[in-house]
Amino acid sequence: MRTNDAAGRVRAKRLPREVRERQILDAAVEVFSQRGYHAASMDEISEVADISKPMVYAYLGSKEDLFAACIRREATRLMEAIAAGVSEAGDRPDVQLWHGLRAFFGFVGEYRDSWRVLHRQASAQGGPFAQELLDMRRRAISLVAALLMNTSDSEAASLHADAMAAALVGAGESLADWWLDHPEESAGTVAARLMNLVWMGFGNLVDGQMWQPPR
Amino acid sequence: MRTNDAAGRVRAKRLPREVRERQILDAAVEVFSQRGYHAASMDEISEVADISKPMVYAYLGSKEDLFAACIRREATRLMEAIAAGVSEAGDRPDVQLWHGLRAFFGFVGEYRDSWRVLHRQASAQGGPFAQELLDMRRRAISLVAALLMNTSDSEAASLHADAMAAALVGAGESLADWWLDHPEESAGTVAARLMNLVWMGFGNLVDGQMWQPPR
Repeated sequence: MRTNDAAGRVRAKRLPREVRERQILDAAVEVFSQRGYHAASMDEISEVADISKPMVYAYLGSKEDLFAACIRREATRLMEAIAAGVSEAGDRPDVQLWHGLRAFFGFVGEYRDSWRVLHRQASAQGGPFAQELLDMRRRAISLVAALLMNTSDSEAASLHADAMAAALVGAGESLADWWLDHPEESAGTVAARLMNLVWMGFGNLVDGQMWQPPR
Repeated sequence: MRTNDAAGRVRAKRLPREVRERQILDAAVEVFSQRGYHAASMDEISEVADISKPMVYAYLGSKEDLFAACIRREATRLMEAIAAGVSEAGDRPDVQLWHGLRAFFGFVGEYRDSWRVLHRQASAQGGPFAQELLDMRRRAISLVAALLMNTSDSEAASLHADAMAAALVGAGESLADWWLDHPEESAGTVAARLMNLVWMGFGNLVDGQMWQPPR
């Protein structure tokens, strides 16, 4: 099929597969995010990606496959961003948590389209996409639980860390969703709100005590 | 249709409409929760409710309508349970929060079928059900924000209360979901985990300080 399309062949020779796949996924995230799953068309994705429709199908399959691939890629990116944020943070648990939250809200703020696809669109679609989302949540909870477990290792402590990780991931997701409706806030402000809630708790906040980022 | 069905007519005379609707909804919540939306059949719902299938359709419409009615009813019940818990709690904000969390996890523990339908099934289905779920979350966030705003009324404080309510509702949902996979925990234990997280914060918890319920 590609042999009929001179422009396509030139591109096909120039660009390695990973680059073309990335272009397709970038375009797909943009189009799914803006139109929603049902209204998004493979024509528009092909156009935005500047890659012929048959090639889009050849590389990433049906619209359903493509949407699932978007969820997987964006989830992996988000997880990598958080892990990278935390690993720069040194040993203090509050600073680790702060960097993790900054990385999370930084990612959501920078890639709002990703977050919309990941969270709103995927849960609005349900079915296999809801399953992808559930897998992503499980990975996120494991990542956070591993961080919270640094300080203690008893069985009860690790069960508690797992429960706290579930609560924290839920709080982060829900606050990121809230943020989509309050875009005037900066990533740092939203991250600081959640940091204060989970580090200081309402008890200290009511007393006027606040957590402050280092330096 | 009911005039052709002697047994149905007897029931129709004996039971007022609200009672029959309640029977149908109780049965539907049970069947949807156990089978999932797709595998659930109107035959089984009619059988469990002990109400003829034509009457099920006459009262509550199609399977889709019935599922949406289940979500609405269970969401309303949950909201009422939380509001009732909080209004018994007096003025202290920590005790109000504690009673609200106890009521929430008490409801989820007592009506696991409701929660499964509300949360897991509805989000696995997506579409209009995801919208019902979103409306329920918005109501829950408003309820919690109103509680958190008791102490202060500035615009910044009410924005913060709204963000904290979103975080808290997300944490509660996520922990309730975690609980479905850890049924050995009591409602009180799970509620106390979340209470400690949001009232004390990790900072105090790391220092070994805990929040204790009154008396």
